[in-house]
Amino acid sequence: MSQANINDNEVDIVIVAFHSDLTAFLNEWRPIFSPFHLIIIKDPDLKEELQIPEGFNFHVYTKSDIDKAVGPSNSNLFSGYSCRYFGYLISRKKYIISVDDDCIPAKDNMGCLVDVVAQHIANLKTPATPFFFNTLYDPFCKGADFVRGYPFSLRSGVSCALSCGLWLNVADYDAPTQVLKPGHRNSRYVDAVLTVPAGAMMPVSGINIAFDRELVGPALAPSLKLAGEGKFRWETIEDIWCGMCAKVVCDHLSLGVKSGLPYVWRNERGNAIDSLKKEWEGLKLMEKVVPLFQSIRLPQSAATAEDCVVEIAKIVKEQLGGEEDPMYDRAADAMVAWVNLWKSVGSG
Amino acid sequence: MSQANINDNEVDIVIVAFHSDLTAFLNEWRPIFSPFHLIIIKDPDLKEELQIPEGFNFHVYTKSDIDKAVGPSNSNLFSGYSCRYFGYLISRKKYIISVDDDCIPAKDNMGCLVDVVAQHIANLKTPATPFFFNTLYDPFCKGADFVRGYPFSLRSGVSCALSCGLWLNVADYDAPTQVLKPGHRNSRYVDAVLTVPAGAMMPVSGINIAFDRELVGPALAPSLKLAGEGKFRWETIEDIWCGMCAKVVCDHLSLGVKSGLPYVWRNERGNAIDSLKKEWEGLKLMEKVVPLFQSIRLPQSAATAEDCVVEIAKIVKEQLGGEEDPMYDRAADAMVAWVNLWKSVGSG
Repeated sequence: MSQANINDNEVDIVIVAFHSDLTAFLNEWRPIFSPFHLIIIKDPDLKEELQIPEGFNFHVYTKSDIDKAVGPSNSNLFSGYSCRYFGYLISRKKYIISVDDDCIPAKDNMGCLVDVVAQHIANLKTPATPFFFNTLYDPFCKGADFVRGYPFSLRSGVSCALSCGLWLNVADYDAPTQVLKPGHRNSRYVDAVLTVPAGAMMPVSGINIAFDRELVGPALAPSLKLAGEGKFRWETIEDIWCGMCAKVVCDHLSLGVKSGLPYVWRNERGNAIDSLKKEWEGLKLMEKVVPLFQSIRLPQSAATAEDCVVEIAKIVKEQLGGEEDPMYDRAADAMVAWVNLWKSVGSG
Repeated sequence: MSQANINDNEVDIVIVAFHSDLTAFLNEWRPIFSPFHLIIIKDPDLKEELQIPEGFNFHVYTKSDIDKAVGPSNSNLFSGYSCRYFGYLISRKKYIISVDDDCIPAKDNMGCLVDVVAQHIANLKTPATPFFFNTLYDPFCKGADFVRGYPFSLRSGVSCALSCGLWLNVADYDAPTQVLKPGHRNSRYVDAVLTVPAGAMMPVSGINIAFDRELVGPALAPSLKLAGEGKFRWETIEDIWCGMCAKVVCDHLSLGVKSGLPYVWRNERGNAIDSLKKEWEGLKLMEKVVPLFQSIRLPQSAATAEDCVVEIAKIVKEQLGGEEDPMYDRAADAMVAWVNLWKSVGSG
């Protein structure tokens, strides 16, 4: 899909500024991002003024904007990595694309710059096929089709709500994996997009994603915060939790989730060894959280993404709440608070 | 995985000869197949003597071998495309690889010959991960790993029982798709293997597959025959049925199914327009068959692949049997007959 086919009024690109100088980052992205509106969320802990090069159509939101919009009791929802969710909340566009500020455009196997916007939007605008796996990957990609045996009644597919892109160079590993393989780099460019089948759970990374805000915006909720959560991806699992929540919602509402293209090139940031201590908390937690999300069956009465998130919050509270660690109760409360914000401040 | 790591006593390559002259076919495959034992099944309808070039370690089985081994009442199980199942039955090796005789070795993106044996065996010898989707594909491929958020308790994976390879050039489309896009060729070489998640159904093509015979041999059963079944892939769905059966069995027994690499290069054979009339029967049928297989939950008491196939046959008979078309009853009977043969003639 070329950019010519994308209406730039449909797209907001959400960027979190963890560092004040966005010059190099945005100059790298200029050929791809410049036609689109950028929502830049300044890390609430960042004191220095942002440096943003000329030639972009953008709006910066700071801690005071967040406080003003959501009130001081809710503003802690938007700390650290989760400040990006404020961008999701105040956007009024159909599609959101979000890329971490330690990523630059990748090149494909032919050496061509990957247009993340075009690929994410193509993923979202073409149907997804979660109810039967197509062995030749996304049948709506150029040159592909449904293979023999694919039921014709399922070939129209369903709307795709979430597009999960991947990472070259520094892949999205946890701190222990990164520590064990310090020199490891991901160089495998897999030229494919696929629909993750209904019922299958997956770890959605927040590094490089896009979604249809009108369909599933409320399901991309800031929820689970680790006590020792830091400012490196491997110190958080907020996006993994949010992604499982979104996947459960998509499965329930018969919406699709795609994974694969587009890639971004991810640069190194942070020291995995320093992060190891914090990370273990997130690692142990997944052993409990994955079976929970795998077991969730939402009631028929949950007909919107908002309904679904509230139902999931209820289940989290019932199944994981009241434990020694109040983290799960806080996550459930955050999900409910988020849905309320979506209805009052957002476009819900 | 290099061939040095593969014990050639572990592998049988099963080939069906639909044409008498295998010279060109086997010469193309010589660098890859020559270290291994070939089981060549001569199409029972083929009259002429087979021509097989020198330098291969092979055994040919003909109609009279089939009749002798399984008795005349069972030999109709092994007609047309299904004669390859006789090779699965009489093999005593751990791994079976089967490639259609209209395929030759493919080249990867670097122009290197794809070693289907090495790749299939690597897929089968490394664990599969059906219970959580890894966004960076098979974590056991060289250069890959589990992404952040992947539960550590699931990282050891499960045994992989079935490896489904793909096709360059003429892809495995049904006749209507082929007729609609006569010039269409698959040129996208996707450098990935993935585990198809548990619970997700898929159309397994018999063109290029491998499996662990000891784990799931009985589940690869000759079962569903269309009344007008012919000698072109798009005129049959026996492999699609068999594949769904195998997937249900793998899911139940906590075994994995992988899809992706290796590719073969598939040459054109047959006229899709001529086949259209026959094919529609298979197409309609999938609308009924896919929901059935998606709904199957096997009892805990089914502890082996043999048990599972007998249970599935029972369900097929209950749910689809007794209809105007006796095809489903025949399929269920064939599955039971196959399991009995596996126990008496095979290594069951």
